[in-house]
Amino acid sequence: MPALEWLQGGITAVPGILASGIHCGIKASGKKDLALIYSSSAARAAAVFTANQVKGAPVQVSMEHMKEGTIQAIVASSGCSNVCTGEQGLRDAREMTASVGELLKIPARHVLVASTGVIGRPLPMDKIRAGLPKLAKALSPQGGRSAAEGILTTDTGPKEAALRVDVGGRPVTLGGIAKGVGMIEPHMATMFCFMATDAVVARDALDAALRRAVAGSFNRITVDGDMSTSDTVAILANGLAENQVLEKGGRGLRQFARGLEAITERLAKMLVKDGEGATKLVTIQVRGARSRRDARLAARSVANSLLVKTAINGQDPNWGRIMMALGKSAAAVRADRVGISFDDEVVVAAGQFRQGARLDRVREIMARPEFAIRIDLGLGGGEDQVWTCDLSEEYVRINAKYTT
Amino acid sequence: MPALEWLQGGITAVPGILASGIHCGIKASGKKDLALIYSSSAARAAAVFTANQVKGAPVQVSMEHMKEGTIQAIVASSGCSNVCTGEQGLRDAREMTASVGELLKIPARHVLVASTGVIGRPLPMDKIRAGLPKLAKALSPQGGRSAAEGILTTDTGPKEAALRVDVGGRPVTLGGIAKGVGMIEPHMATMFCFMATDAVVARDALDAALRRAVAGSFNRITVDGDMSTSDTVAILANGLAENQVLEKGGRGLRQFARGLEAITERLAKMLVKDGEGATKLVTIQVRGARSRRDARLAARSVANSLLVKTAINGQDPNWGRIMMALGKSAAAVRADRVGISFDDEVVVAAGQFRQGARLDRVREIMARPEFAIRIDLGLGGGEDQVWTCDLSEEYVRINAKYTT
Repeated sequence: MPALEWLQGGITAVPGILASGIHCGIKASGKKDLALIYSSSAARAAAVFTANQVKGAPVQVSMEHMKEGTIQAIVASSGCSNVCTGEQGLRDAREMTASVGELLKIPARHVLVASTGVIGRPLPMDKIRAGLPKLAKALSPQGGRSAAEGILTTDTGPKEAALRVDVGGRPVTLGGIAKGVGMIEPHMATMFCFMATDAVVARDALDAALRRAVAGSFNRITVDGDMSTSDTVAILANGLAENQVLEKGGRGLRQFARGLEAITERLAKMLVKDGEGATKLVTIQVRGARSRRDARLAARSVANSLLVKTAINGQDPNWGRIMMALGKSAAAVRADRVGISFDDEVVVAAGQFRQGARLDRVREIMARPEFAIRIDLGLGGGEDQVWTCDLSEEYVRINAKYTT
Repeated sequence: MPALEWLQGGITAVPGILASGIHCGIKASGKKDLALIYSSSAARAAAVFTANQVKGAPVQVSMEHMKEGTIQAIVASSGCSNVCTGEQGLRDAREMTASVGELLKIPARHVLVASTGVIGRPLPMDKIRAGLPKLAKALSPQGGRSAAEGILTTDTGPKEAALRVDVGGRPVTLGGIAKGVGMIEPHMATMFCFMATDAVVARDALDAALRRAVAGSFNRITVDGDMSTSDTVAILANGLAENQVLEKGGRGLRQFARGLEAITERLAKMLVKDGEGATKLVTIQVRGARSRRDARLAARSVANSLLVKTAINGQDPNWGRIMMALGKSAAAVRADRVGISFDDEVVVAAGQFRQGARLDRVREIMARPEFAIRIDLGLGGGEDQVWTCDLSEEYVRINAKYTT
């Protein structure tokens, strides 16, 4: 058996996890706008929330519920984010957890809540109240896809991933769903990622593994440099695999963490690929930086530059804009040390256009749906990478009239 | 006589200043691509250059020439920026100053040089060599507009301003030309601003006045958050007004500085208005911040947010995105203290939608070519403002294929 095996499906690939998604009427489009994830047994949970100082009511309530660390259900709505809604917003978010708790016969404090969509409008609670019983009734071991659909906003499709990983000789399953799109950067996004596993994991170990996985995945992607007020990443570990508990420092945890990193990286890339108006997934790799931090700063500056992102959209090998973006970053940069390649085609050496570089070939590479821009700063051993997408006219079209 | 009087024209409104602009062949379009400014007497100069670590060859040469502080001419080209061009680029920039020096019978070190356009290609020196004698011959006291045209890239039109200001009871003249467009932020732009005055100003006083004026104007504008490798702001003071020398701490210098600030603010706003694809000039005012620095950070975060800029483009009163941009900024923000108005229409109070706010009226305000977003953080006495523009599909169209 290979150490890591990808599975079909998403969150309900995990034993003991049921899920559902329905339309209750938040979205005028008639698309699904409520999602529920339920673990047949109470689960240890870890979660990471937006770093934005303006946090939505659901984030505030979920942060309270995470204090104890036991979670059995996650309820999420899409179409209205319940952010900047004051006391009413907090009451509405609490009511959602209480109603789900009653329906599932679990304490409200064992329910996480998340909402995504327009900021500043109250949730249509009448519709949600009418929808929650249907949502609970729809829970099923095949419901992962429906739940993945229930959390989408301007995403073009659902994002799911699942895998089996061998920990200490025993297979455990990891599965998750995610939504992304705009406001993706630098600490997560208008994004949700809900994951589950049947592994038995100590609480602090689960928390550390999740933070590390998020740092290497969702915190390495960027769509537009904006940061949502609703970002939530959570994982429930229900322990049904009955493996020996995974503890910090143990080999089993390292194996589990590799699986978690694989699944978050896969979901993160799906988010960038489906960035609003995006047509390409581009990896910005930086090496030769003075430090890892410098490498990240340089990669981020390139990944977020509108001029670089529009050039990627136009499949235009405008390497000068990459030089510009490196130079404006907070990383140490010496122009005459910089090397730049598109995949394996070296375009810049020692800070200048490399004589003989084949720009026609670069245009071919840039026509691909995925490629890498590899940068060598020539100053040290620091390396890092981020994933970005292009900036298209479609992005502007989508975002110019989102609320109206 | 009013203390400050706007004049027709631009840089050649200043006594003793001649200018010219011609097409020499750098631009395939046939538009003007060379500009020259000449002072009939050697002038004291002050200059500010890009903070980008990747500096164009012309910037490097001009920085050398500024060491002495005496400048009599500025030569500028557009269409090719001479950046990332190595030793050849430095030779070419030096040759331009030497040729202009010979033509005008002044030392090469008294000539500033600036180039704007595509990064990474060598200047077509054969065309520039053939053009410079014609450029020098074309110098005239009516040549300001031609010079303003000679420095443009994707600008839709030339930017000029001139004024007369009373210093110590004596009128002095200030005039300038500028170009801007993309890569405008946070320390200047793909921008040039060349100014002249007939005032007699002490060197350190001129330098301090210029830095202060730039901080309040060109460093307060943003188009796309990118920072050019070629930015240059320079002022020549030829002393023909024979006023008592303006020294630091004197009342005359304060009067002169007010004029300089007025002219740089006017030119800076012209740059934002003519930002690539821009249709609106929006002032982001922040007050109530913990400090002036916090006010600037908050204003910049709003001014640079793609989601805010696209909402402005769509004339969509999506105030939630402003809350998001405030929350993600490095400034201290408490959601429940924030107030937001569009011009005089209050939309957000205590972090929530103000009951009775007239969104129809906000849409009318957002339809104007200029309006202000006023933000009160409710935390202290810090105030600052920046000017920004909207992000349009046209911006993406322009930038997706700029080099090809």
